[in-house]
Parts: sequence; structure tokens; C-alpha cells
Amino acid sequence: MARLWGGRYRGGPAPEMSQFADSLSFDQRLWKADIAGSIAYAHALARAGVLTPEEGRQIEAGLRAIHREFEEGTFAFQATDEDIHTAVERRLGELIGPLAGKLHTGRSRNDQVATDLRLWLREEIDRLAGHLVALQEAALAQAEAHLDCILPGYTHLQPAQPLRFSHWMLAHFWAWQRDRERLGEVRARVNWCPLGAGALAGSSWGVDRAALAQELGFAGVIPNSLDAVQDRDFVAEFLSWGAMLGVHLSRLAEDLILWASPAFGFVRLHEAYTTGSSLMPQKRNPDSLELLRGKAGRLVGNLTGFLVALKGLPAGYNRDLQEDKEPLFDTVDTLLAALPVAAGVIRTLEPQPERMRAALSDDLLATDLAEYLVRKGVPFRQSHHLVGRLVARAEDLGVPLRKVPLAEMQAISPAFGEDVQGVFDFEASVEARRSEGGTAREAILRQVEAARQALAR
Amino acid sequence: MARLWGGRYRGGPAPEMSQFADSLSFDQRLWKADIAGSIAYAHALARAGVLTPEEGRQIEAGLRAIHREFEEGTFAFQATDEDIHTAVERRLGELIGPLAGKLHTGRSRNDQVATDLRLWLREEIDRLAGHLVALQEAALAQAEAHLDCILPGYTHLQPAQPLRFSHWMLAHFWAWQRDRERLGEVRARVNWCPLGAGALAGSSWGVDRAALAQELGFAGVIPNSLDAVQDRDFVAEFLSWGAMLGVHLSRLAEDLILWASPAFGFVRLHEAYTTGSSLMPQKRNPDSLELLRGKAGRLVGNLTGFLVALKGLPAGYNRDLQEDKEPLFDTVDTLLAALPVAAGVIRTLEPQPERMRAALSDDLLATDLAEYLVRKGVPFRQSHHLVGRLVARAEDLGVPLRKVPLAEMQAISPAFGEDVQGVFDFEASVEARRSEGGTAREAILRQVEAARQALAR
Amino acid sequence: MARLWGGRYRGGPAPEMSQFADSLSFDQRLWKADIAGSIAYAHALARAGVLTPEEGRQIEAGLRAIHREFEEGTFAFQATDEDIHTAVERRLGELIGPLAGKLHTGRSRNDQVATDLRLWLREEIDRLAGHLVALQEAALAQAEAHLDCILPGYTHLQPAQPLRFSHWMLAHFWAWQRDRERLGEVRARVNWCPLGAGALAGSSWGVDRAALAQELGFAGVIPNSLDAVQDRDFVAEFLSWGAMLGVHLSRLAEDLILWASPAFGFVRLHEAYTTGSSLMPQKRNPDSLELLRGKAGRLVGNLTGFLVALKGLPAGYNRDLQEDKEPLFDTVDTLLAALPVAAGVIRTLEPQPERMRAALSDDLLATDLAEYLVRKGVPFRQSHHLVGRLVARAEDLGVPLRKVPLAEMQAISPAFGEDVQGVFDFEASVEARRSEGGTAREAILRQVEAARQALAR
Amino acid sequence: MARLWGGRYRGGPAPEMSQFADSLSFDQRLWKADIAGSIAYAHALARAGVLTPEEGRQIEAGLRAIHREFEEGTFAFQATDEDIHTAVERRLGELIGPLAGKLHTGRSRNDQVATDLRLWLREEIDRLAGHLVALQEAALAQAEAHLDCILPGYTHLQPAQPLRFSHWMLAHFWAWQRDRERLGEVRARVNWCPLGAGALAGSSWGVDRAALAQELGFAGVIPNSLDAVQDRDFVAEFLSWGAMLGVHLSRLAEDLILWASPAFGFVRLHEAYTTGSSLMPQKRNPDSLELLRGKAGRLVGNLTGFLVALKGLPAGYNRDLQEDKEPLFDTVDTLLAALPVAAGVIRTLEPQPERMRAALSDDLLATDLAEYLVRKGVPFRQSHHLVGRLVARAEDLGVPLRKVPLAEMQAISPAFGEDVQGVFDFEASVEARRSEGGTAREAILRQVEAARQALAR
Repeated sequence: MARLWGGRYRGGPAPEMSQFADSLSFDQRLWKADIAGSIAYAHALARAGVLTPEEGRQIEAGLRAIHREFEEGTFAFQATDEDIHTAVERRLGELIGPLAGKLHTGRSRNDQVATDLRLWLREEIDRLAGHLVALQEAALAQAEAHLDCILPGYTHLQPAQPLRFSHWMLAHFWAWQRDRERLGEVRARVNWCPLGAGALAGSSWGVDRAALAQELGFAGVIPNSLDAVQDRDFVAEFLSWGAMLGVHLSRLAEDLILWASPAFGFVRLHEAYTTGSSLMPQKRNPDSLELLRGKAGRLVGNLTGFLVALKGLPAGYNRDLQEDKEPLFDTVDTLLAALPVAAGVIRTLEPQPERMRAALSDDLLATDLAEYLVRKGVPFRQSHHLVGRLVARAEDLGVPLRKVPLAEMQAISPAFGEDVQGVFDFEASVEARRSEGGTAREAILRQVEAARQALAR
Repeated sequence: MARLWGGRYRGGPAPEMSQFADSLSFDQRLWKADIAGSIAYAHALARAGVLTPEEGRQIEAGLRAIHREFEEGTFAFQATDEDIHTAVERRLGELIGPLAGKLHTGRSRNDQVATDLRLWLREEIDRLAGHLVALQEAALAQAEAHLDCILPGYTHLQPAQPLRFSHWMLAHFWAWQRDRERLGEVRARVNWCPLGAGALAGSSWGVDRAALAQELGFAGVIPNSLDAVQDRDFVAEFLSWGAMLGVHLSRLAEDLILWASPAFGFVRLHEAYTTGSSLMPQKRNPDSLELLRGKAGRLVGNLTGFLVALKGLPAGYNRDLQEDKEPLFDTVDTLLAALPVAAGVIRTLEPQPERMRAALSDDLLATDLAEYLVRKGVPFRQSHHLVGRLVARAEDLGVPLRKVPLAEMQAISPAFGEDVQGVFDFEASVEARRSEGGTAREAILRQVEAARQALAR
Repeated sequence: MARLWGGRYRGGPAPEMSQFADSLSFDQRLWKADIAGSIAYAHALARAGVLTPEEGRQIEAGLRAIHREFEEGTFAFQATDEDIHTAVERRLGELIGPLAGKLHTGRSRNDQVATDLRLWLREEIDRLAGHLVALQEAALAQAEAHLDCILPGYTHLQPAQPLRFSHWMLAHFWAWQRDRERLGEVRARVNWCPLGAGALAGSSWGVDRAALAQELGFAGVIPNSLDAVQDRDFVAEFLSWGAMLGVHLSRLAEDLILWASPAFGFVRLHEAYTTGSSLMPQKRNPDSLELLRGKAGRLVGNLTGFLVALKGLPAGYNRDLQEDKEPLFDTVDTLLAALPVAAGVIRTLEPQPERMRAALSDDLLATDLAEYLVRKGVPFRQSHHLVGRLVARAEDLGVPLRKVPLAEMQAISPAFGEDVQGVFDFEASVEARRSEGGTAREAILRQVEAARQALAR
Repeated sequence: MARLWGGRYRGGPAPEMSQFADSLSFDQRLWKADIAGSIAYAHALARAGVLTPEEGRQIEAGLRAIHREFEEGTFAFQATDEDIHTAVERRLGELIGPLAGKLHTGRSRNDQVATDLRLWLREEIDRLAGHLVALQEAALAQAEAHLDCILPGYTHLQPAQPLRFSHWMLAHFWAWQRDRERLGEVRARVNWCPLGAGALAGSSWGVDRAALAQELGFAGVIPNSLDAVQDRDFVAEFLSWGAMLGVHLSRLAEDLILWASPAFGFVRLHEAYTTGSSLMPQKRNPDSLELLRGKAGRLVGNLTGFLVALKGLPAGYNRDLQEDKEPLFDTVDTLLAALPVAAGVIRTLEPQPERMRAALSDDLLATDLAEYLVRKGVPFRQSHHLVGRLVARAEDLGVPLRKVPLAEMQAISPAFGEDVQGVFDFEASVEARRSEGGTAREAILRQVEAARQALAR
């Protein structure tokens, strides 16, 4: 029995066709899910009376033996195994004889592969969620450890206002929190059972789909057999989740690549996450981060590519859907590799407080200056304009803002007084922003507490 | 006051720069959200004592006057209005004088635009959800009306097993149900308040962000001011939602384009959703559906493009983020136009039961034949093979399966008996699949009931 | 010497970092190009006097030995080999001792990998061009063989005007001709030599880059060393080429999937390019074509993903560029597998002339009818309108156009005469379109001739 | 006659359908091409004897009058104008009566719109090429003006080797040169004539397609009428070109955003290409560059989206193809706006040589140090390792490389001598790389000369 479907065929596939169409090379990683699904299906057939109890037991025993072969690395694929489902069924026949041929009663590879993929992905999602938590924990620990580091906050990569390092770190934390929330939602949609849908039309064997779903840990049964076999929303949704997380990691990477460059020098990466050059002996390159940034590409590409494959497909299973696996596997693999690297980079990151402090320039306090004028009664829009002129004046004089003589300041606005020097205090500036989500120590401690609670959810 | 930020500048932007950078041409549709946000912010400033109650009242009155101007179409933009925020602030100054300049105290366009966009999108999401419900209702009505239509179910666009038309229609219903579920989740993440985050560092004015959030109907406050201004996950997530819905509509369209082609002829589209040809007088083309299919492209493009824009951005607001609006607006507009067309097409669709029935060929019952053998004791894998040979034999004989002489059948398997003719009944075939999600009338009625409940959620 | 760049390092990379960053698992396929580039570089160093002639000979001999090891499958990778370049250099050291360390003089992996990739891709492009020609030849042969098959031409998947099968086949031919033309242009841009550019700044060793380029068969030297190492346009351009070809193949596949469906039945696919079902014994699914259609997804995804990776990269080599290889390899592999399948499908395709002829319906001649009226002096826009009314009348009467009584026709336009029956001739219709590119036999024979000449170019 | 195709219709389109399907709002910009194509087609009909000379003259006069109306802004669209073609034909009828109805003889909107789009794009390509040349000229002028500026060259955003500013500028020049080369190739494929292909099957009116093509300035006739109407490769190819140029501009932008940040401070942007902040008075943000970087997103999105729309379309014109226009127009508009901004930024850029020189650190010369040892007879791989150790030693000592005592150096390698101090000369380092494409003044002057010649091509 070379192929499962050979009855009406006179010849076999063209050699280039087998190579093009067979999926065993990549779908073999579904073996565990495939066997689990088959065991549950054998139970269902037995419950429905399609198998005798003894037949059910023999099939299950055969499948468990195959499971062991995979675990022990002794399972031998054959050239005619088109895919993992075929390989397992072929092997079952070798082990238990023609009885194996009863397992497929009322089942199609269409509902089988959809079930396998959902089972497999559910498990990988749980692993990914664990890695994401570890990343968040690393970030939270850094945020708590470096509350006193003040550095320039940037917008447009130009100095904006002073920030605490912790504040920056937590901004990334919250993005990952959203990722984790979304992942939970994706998981909830992955976790529905297509088994029993057959090729497209459902089952005539009295298979209890609800019991099947329950045995496999699914939340319930997909209510339409056609939808059950043709739906790949869960794959696209997961790929979309991965693309978004990839973009988040690329933004973290960009920050740290910049900050690890001597021009900024705000952080030092642990050597273990850097790489040297084959030509230039001095190099200590942030390759880990560049790869994190670059991987956003493939994650977006996997999403885009799969949406292209889905677009315009007619109802029912179409072989185009086989293109779901490789992008899905690649996104999972990429993130399983990337998340520990990101966590490692953060865990071992050494902020450089002196370099941060050295980069604090008076223009980061221009907003505080404008707010100083507001407190003296100048409407904000006007005070903004006046401080703008003061900045220009300081530039002309070639001095930092605090060194502009008071008389010059007063020429711009008489509201400037001696007390203006009190504005030039970076610690005071961050402490002033006390409202929820702001940079004051107390606001950040509240944020850390919220982060801790979010992590526990 | 040409620009909000002119103080330190000596000249203006280059003409090609204004044209390149100004966003008024597309962001003016945010006017309502912008004014609503500003009124709430004025309240917050008044509560914080930054404005006197009287000042607060004057600002609110001015903003309400501007709201009326927009509603009445009398608001006049000026060439120097960079964006909607500038335009409103400029106009407020004209109406109430320098007091207008106090409204921006502690607020930045960074938190303002994020707030506006979330308010605007929240409203559009609710409109889209309504259109989606209407589409689902149209499908459900068709499913209920045409329970008796049996047509060939296809996989790989080859005849597979008979289906009820209702079953097919409901498969699309469930895809849209997932879309609606996802949309609710996206909405929940849109609905957080960035206002009060300032440019990136929070507010030093004692603004009560929780009260602000509540007044604007948000679920809560974004807990980190940097995240509040730089996060565009909600845009990317919405675009991803739109791309997925676009793909769903493309699949519906593909089905109906095929079925409206004379080769299938399973449905007739209402003339109102078709278009003729400038050259060929006979034409009645399913342009509505082709556009629905084609629009999947721009919806995916909007998503991809925005992910590209986000990739690798450093922390803080970067002007690249301005690229969030046009894809967002286009996805909203595209779907607001597409959904009513899809609903109209379905509502007016005329299934053609005779054409469907004419297309029911015996090979659609090959699985039933194999199952017949299983019931005679042949293991499924073997019965599948035997029926495959029977199919080949029928093809050689040039007859439909039911016309293969019993002797020929028995030559293939002695298990074939006189009763095999009972298999050749399409109604019986669909009725046989009674398990949950199957094609039997009773299973579909249960499915319709579940759909009705899902709609009510 | 575990890593090439270990001098300034105290420890090694984190284990998850090695796994994340090492590229050997996928870049080992560059071995041949890597060795060829190194031999040429050894020659260049010898010419420049950096190596003595004897040293040059020893290095070359070592490299040739490594080449043989790869060819014979005896080359042994080691766990510390980061990439193919490291592996080859490590092995060279084992074979010829410290002299191996001279080969990297003035060379960086940056210019080395760019060179390898260009050499490798140039060869694959030539293979792909060959497969494309084979596909075109198959199409041209079918076009010549089936000149007499007339089938309905469709627009909007609705019958439009009659076409010859050959005409349809040649439309695909010309799309592939553009692909081949573009591939030649891409090749011309691939074929420039980065070697000698070092890490980014060029060479101080008097290496003659022009001679290097010539020895490696490049058209010339990339004129800027920074551009030479950071440019990946040639990859993006090739991926874009692949995406476009993928789209072309998806359109061919769509046509044939439709036509192989019994609803159309215009073609029969050779069994060797179809696949059966595990559940439904009658199936003969066009999986080859569905995969061809679906693969467009990954080809577009590879392009999009790589553009994402490139976007916003700063000058100089960044490790993000390592993400060039996997999409490039996947696009090459996908097309090397897909093109022979597409050619095989076409070569073995059996058009079904009777099914085509049976599908020819009178409405395909509505344009001819309108043109008939034009010849009677009715302006086209009016004649189009009149025939439109005639079509509606025929529909009301439930008869094909030719069966509408002449009196009814004349009620619509007195210009209709007895001779109108002459219009209802499909052969005459295709023969009427004699202008260049039209459907007349003579026009198609001219087109076949042009195709033959294009193939020869 | 509301619609061109009304004859067989009993009612009109649904209101939401018109809104969804009509393209006039965006395709009206094709008016000039549409009229030009119609005039040429009128000539062709006259030459073929379908129009009398007098009829031809009247139609041409009418079309020229419409042209004037558009130019003068007096052309009035009507609610029933579906698209620009309909609008022009409707107006022609108003101006010259029923004779207008003859213009469409043998022509379809299918070949008409393909012709219009090619004519329009050809012209825009020429404008874009002009802007690209202006950008290259700006870069070349800067390269020539700042040959003496030496700055750190980076790889991985870590200091690598010293570069001349000119070298960096020219690296971007060459990327644009490739863009220009590719644009020429795209133009050559745009420039083929589909007119005369009719709806899909060609023309029965004896229209001389070669003469038509020549009159419209096309290089020739598309040789297959089906291909002529369904081919949108030229759009996809142009979008791909735009995406690539967008990526190039994003990389330029990233460099300059970094360098304009005070952390680097290598360049000062002209105020006219920067923007301030509504909150922070000191700001001078590189918005022009951030938008250039961000626009890469929409350019990639336009490409991806259109490939999605094309994927899997069956033969013949399908309305999905209408989705070609908006991405095409957006890519053209985006680049017509972006290129002058990029050129303006470069033209007005002020390099800051002191900041560049201040950033030159000794580790940029580590490769020179290794090469010094090579010249003393140490094989490169070993010398690389030794200098790596020296770098580590300097780091431990907290001194720049040149300050490591000679004795310490010699402890690492006895090959170090007094003359090692000669290595610590940045000018000498760039001068040492004299081979083609290197950083030496003479090599750059040769490169400038090559660039000048490339510009002239």
C-alpha cells in the first residue's frame, strides 16, 4: 500500500511531483499530536461500536508502540510515506495487520491534519507563553534594579525630556503584556476540535464529537464540518501574533543597538550576546540584537505569505492549505529561539549611569522651563514660544540654557526670575511628573506593582 | 502663529517639506474625536486647578462652537494648518483669544493624536460590528431558506460529497463569527486612554488621568506614558483583523464567482450587484464579488505596510508613526463599503436548485459506497481501495457508478449485494451524517440554532 | 581557534546565542562558491605579493582538497563552525597549518559572503532560466498541437468571446517570456564583484579587484567598498522576480484547476500530477496545481519579509543581513521544484475539445452580433445597446440567441436581416479577429512564430 | 444612457454597489492619456475605413475640446460617470451626437484602460527619473565638497574603520544608480501597446495595431490580445521598483537621523527639513527623514497588496484588476513627494567635521594594527588574535590603544616595534586603502568620475 488513495490509480505520481507535494520532510514533527489524535479517534470508534473493545485496545496498543518508536528514535520512515499521517498508518498496519485499516473509518486527512495542527500549536503556545513571561520578568527585574538611572528620553531620536531607565524598560514590558494577552486569545481560538468532520461533510458513524473534543482537551467542537476542515484562521492569527511580537522585539533591539554604540554608550551588553569580526580585532558587535531586529522580517513574511495563500480559495480543503505548516513552524521556531536570547540580553544588560547622566543636556528641560512660565501666569502656547526663542538665543550664545544670563532671559519674558535656576535639575524634572504613568519614583513604583500583578495573571 | 512650534525657528519649512509632512488632508476626519478629547482635557485642567472654572467654561464653549462649524460645514481650514489638532487650536484662538493657549498645558500632540485615533477607531469598530452582524443575518436567513438544496461539495474543486447549501452558507457564517469575536478583543485593547502622557514623560500638572479616561469612555489608563505615545499595536491589530476579514470575503467571493459562472450555474446574482461590458452586450459580470476578492489585496497591503513602518523604530514618538492613519482609514473605508455589498449580494442571491441537482454525480457517493462495504465487514482502508477500483472500472465502462453491473461489482468485492443500489441516494447520503456539525437536516437545524445564539451574543 | 574573532573575548557565546546566530545549518550550501572565491583571492594575494607563489600554491591545493571532501561527502563539520566560511578556514588550517591564516589578509566575511552569495545565485539563475525555457517549450508545443480547439473565452469568469485554446496557452507563454527577460536583467546586476571590499573600507594590500572579478567571471567590480558589503538589492530583486513568477504560476494553476473541474471539463490532467483522497475513493485531485497556486504565498512572503529586514538599516554590514539567505534559498528551491511540475502538467495535459465545444453558447457571439449591426450602419454604442436588449429578449423567451425569431430581432432593430444567421458560427468569429494578436488562425501562426523567435533569444 | 452597458439590464446597480465599484474618484487623473488613446484610436478606425475621414475629424475635434475642458478645469463630471472612460465618452456624445458611439467600435474598456495606464505611467516614470537624477546630483556634489571629512565607519553600529564622508555619500549614490537602471528596464516593459486587443480576443475591424502603437509612442504591439488585457506585470514591477527605492531612502534616512542626533552630531539638517514640537520648545526634529523612512512601509504595502490581488486570478480581465490603480497612484505620488525632500535634505546638509573627528577612536585602527603585524610577518589570522588581546588589554588599562605601553604590546607580540605609533593616523588609514572602491582620496576621485559618467548615461 504505497499511497492511501491508490485504488483508482493506474500509475504513481511523477517523481518531481512526489518531491513537490510530499510533506513528510516538514510535517513529521506532528507525530505526537497525530498519534494522540488517533488514539482518541480509536476510542471514539469503539464507543460508537465501529470497533469492538478488543479492536480498540489493539489499535491503541499499536499506536502507543509507534509513539515509543518515535521517542526512542527508532521509527523508520519509508520513501513512500507522503506525510506523517501516512507514515503512522503504514506502520500501524505493519504492527497490527489489516485491523489498522479500520482506524480511518469516517476520518479524512482533512480533519486529521487540522486536529494535529491545533494540538501541536496549543502546546507550542504554552511554551512560548512561558518564554514571554521569562522575558517580562527579566525586564521587570531590571526596572526595579535601576530606578535611579536617569537618561535622556528621546522623541524623533532628539532629546526630549529626562526619563528613568526603569520607565523605558517598563514601556517594553507592557508591549509584551499585550502580546501575552493576545496569545491567550489566539490559544482560545486554536483550541476547538475539528475531528469527526471527515473530509468536509461530517460523520455517519455516530462518532461523539463532544467526547472526542473533551478527551483531547479541546474547549469544544467546531460546529460546521466544512468550516472545520477549511478554516486556517488560527494559523493566520498566530502568524499575525508572531509578526507583532517580532516588531516589538525589533524595537527593543533598535534601542539597545543604539545605546550600545559608543555614540550613546548607555548600556553595555554582555559579551555572551555579542560577536567579533573576522577582520577587525576590536569588534564586539551586538549581533544578538541585530538578529532580533532582522527576524521581524521573516515573521512578517510568514504572515503575509500565508494570507496570500489563503486569498481567494474556494470552499473545502484545497491543497494550497498545506502551505500553512512551514510558516507556522518557522514562526514558532524563530520565537522559541529569539525569546530566550532577548531575555538573556536583558538579564545581563549593564546600564551605564555615568554615560546616561553625561548625556543629560539642558534642552531636555525646555518643557520644564515653559511650565515654569505657565506657573508664572503665561498661557502655555505663549510660554512655549518664549522658551523656543530662549533656546535659539542660547544656541547663538553657544551656551547651555542655564548659562543664559538672567537679563537675556528677561528680555525674552519678564516672567523669568532668579528662581529659574531651580528648573535646571533633572531629578526634580522626573519627580515632577507624578500622575499615573509618569516618571516620578512613586509613579514608577505603582507601575512596577501593576506589572507584577499583570505577570501573575 | 503659523505653526505650534515656531519659537526657536528662524524660517519655515521648505515648500516640498510642508507638502510631504502635513497631514491635514487625511487627518481632518478626526475632528470630532479631537474636539471631544480637548473638552475632556479642559475639564481635567480645570479639575487640577490649571484653569479657573470660568476659563474651563470658555474653552469648552469655544470647542463646542468649532464642533458646530464642522457639523455645519462652515469650518475653514487655512494653508498653515499642519494637521487637525493645529487647525482646531488655531480656530479656538480666533474665537476666544490667548486663553486658547492654555489648553495645551501639559499636553502634547503625541498623547493627543493617540487619544483621537483611539476614540475615532472605537466608533468605527462599532459601525463595522453592526455591518458584520447584518452580513451574518443575511447568511443565516439564506441558510434557513434553502435547507433542501443539495449540491456537490467540493474539495480541490473536484466533487467530494453532497452537501446542503445551508451547510456551505453557515461555514462562512462561522468565519465571520470569529471575525466578530476578534473585533471585540481588538476593541478592548483600543479602548485605553493615553491622554495625560504628554510627549512621553507624563504630566506634572496633577491631571487625573483616571477621570479623563472615564469621561472619554475608556476602560482605563495606559500605565506607562512612554508606551502610551509610542504604542500603535492597536492599529496593527485592527489592520490584521481587516486583512483576515478581507481574506474571508475573498473566499466567499471566489465561491460565488465560480457558482455564478454558467459552468456551475448554482446561483444567480441579483442584477444590482453585477455590471455589463462596454464591448460585449451579453455580459452580466459579478463585479461586486471580484472587487470583494480583490480588496483582500489592499487590506493585506495596509497591514504589511504598517508593520514595515513600525519595524525597528526606536523608543518614543517618531514621525514614522504618522503613517498609521492612511492605512487605518483605508481599511475602515474599504470594509464599510464592502460589508454592505457582501450582505446585499447574499440577501438577493438566488440559489438554482435544479442546476445543483443536475451536478450531483454518482462519484460523490463513492465514500458512501466504501462505508457500505465497511458495514459489510470490510476494513475501511481496504473498502476505500476496492471502491477506487470500482470507480476506475466505471470510468472504463463509461457509465456512472450505479450503472456498473452487480457482477462487475462483485468481481471487485463479493461484499457488494443487491442492496448497493440503496447507496445511490443523495438525500440519504447527507442525512447519514448526523453527528454534530454534519449535513443531516437535524444537525443543521442544531447548527442554525447555535448560529442564532452566537448572533445574539 | 574556536571562533575567528576570539582575541578580545574572555568567554564564549551563550548557548542559546550560538543556536540563534550560527548560520552553518543553512549556509553550508555555499561551500562551492566559498572555495572558488577563496582560490581566486589566494591568486590575488599572490599577485599582490602578499603570498609567495609557493604559499599561494599550498593554499590553493588545500582548498582544492576541501572541495573534494565536499564533493565526496567526507567533509566533517564541527560544533564550533559558525558558518561555512569558518568551517572552510578551520579545515584549511588543519590541512596546511598556520599558513591558512594568511588567506584572510585584507578580506572580511563581509565581502566574502557577498561574493559567495552572488556566485551561488548566478549559477542558480542559469538553472532556473533553463527550467523556464522548458516550461515555455511545453506551452508552445501545446499551442501548436491544439490550434483547432475553440473554447469560450472568459472575462469575469463569464463567457465573453470564443478563443482558440492556443491563444490562451500563448498568453501564459508571454508572461513567462517577460519573466525570462527580467531574470536576465537581475542576473546582470547579480554579476558584480564585491571581493576586495574588505569589511567596508577596501583593501590596503594592492589587491587587483578587476583581475579578481575577471577570474570569477563577474562583469566588473562594485565601485564602492561600503556599497559592496551592504548592498542586498540583488537578493531583493531576485525575490521580487520569484514572487512575480509565483503569481504567474498561480494564475496558470487557477485556470487549469477550474478547467479540470467537471463543471468545465475542458482539460484532463495526467494522473501523475494528481492525488487521491484518504477518505473519498473517487478522487483525482489537481494537487500539483493547487500547490503551484499556494506557493505564490511563500514567494511573496519571502520578498516581503526580506524588504522588512532591509528597511531602515544603517550603513555598513549589519547582522540583520544574514536574513538574506533563507528566503533566497527557499525561493530558489521552491521554483526549482515548481517549474518542472508546471512543465510536466502542461506537457501531459489533454485538452477535451468536445467539452470545450459543448460550452460554446450563443451569447459568446453577442459582440459579433453588435458588429454585424455596425456593418449595417448602426453606430457601435447603439448596436451594443440593441443587442443587449436582444439578449434580454432571448432570456425571456428561454432560447439561445440564434433561435430568437427574426421578427423579434427586427422589432428591436430593423437592421437585422436574414443574413444574421451567418453570425452564429464560432469558427467564423475567431477567424474574424485577424489583426495582430487576434484569434484568427493566421494571427496565431504569426504569434507562434514570434514565440519561437523569443525562445531562441 | 447612464451606463455604457445598459442594454440587457432592467434596473441599475444598488447604491452601495455604485459607491463600491465606481472608479471615477481615482481614475480621473487618467484623462489626458484616455483622450490621447481615443484620438489615436479614431485615427486607426479612420485608416481602417470604419470611420469616414470626416467622422474621424469630428471625433478628434470633440476629443480635443474635452481635453481643453479638462485643462481649463471646466469639465463637469456627472453622478452616472462610472469611470474616466465613461465620462469622456458621455461628454463626446454631448458634443458631437451619436457619432460618438462609433468610437468604441472594436474597443473595450479592457484594452482602453490598459493603454491609458501605460501611457500615464510612462510619463510619470520620466518625471521620477528626473527627480532621481536630481537626488544623485545632490549626493555627488556633497561627496565632492567634503572629501576631507573623515568619520568613523560603522558595521553593526559599532566603530569599524575610518571612512571619508564622501565614501558614505557615494554608497547611497550607487544604490540610486541601480534604481535608475531598473526604472529604465521597467519603462521598457511598460511601453508596449495593448490597444486593439478588444475585450480579450482582438479586433475584427482591420485596425493596424502597429500604426496605433507607433502613433502613441509605444515600442511595439503586445503580441497576444488576451495577455494584453490581463497583464499587470508592469504595475507589479513598478511597485516593486518603488518598494526598493523606498527601502533605499529608509536606509539613507536612518543614517541621517542617527547622525543628526546629538549622540553622533555628524551632520546638521537644515531647519527647513525639520519640525518642532507642540509641547517641547527646544525641538528640532528630523521629521523629513522619519517620514522618508516610514514611507517605505506604504511602498512595500502597495506592492504586497497588489501581488495579493493578482494571485490566483483566472484568465481574462477580472474586476480585481481595478485594484491596480490606487497602489500605483500612491506609489507614484509618494515618490514624487519624497524624492525632492530627500534631495533637499542632502543639498542643504551641513556635515560637522569636528564632531566626526572627535568620534575617531583608536579602536578604528585595530585592523591597521593587525595589518602592521602582517607586514612584520605574522599571518593575518594570528595577528588578528594578537590585536584582539591588545584591545582587551587596553580596555583593562582604561587607555586608548596608542597609549598602551610598548612593553605591554611586546608582551603580546614581540613583533610590535617603536614604529607602531605610525599606525595611529586616521588619514593614513584611509589613504592606505587605495584599491578600486577604497577610501583613499585617489580611489574616491576615480569613483566620483565613474559616478559622473553614470549620471550622464
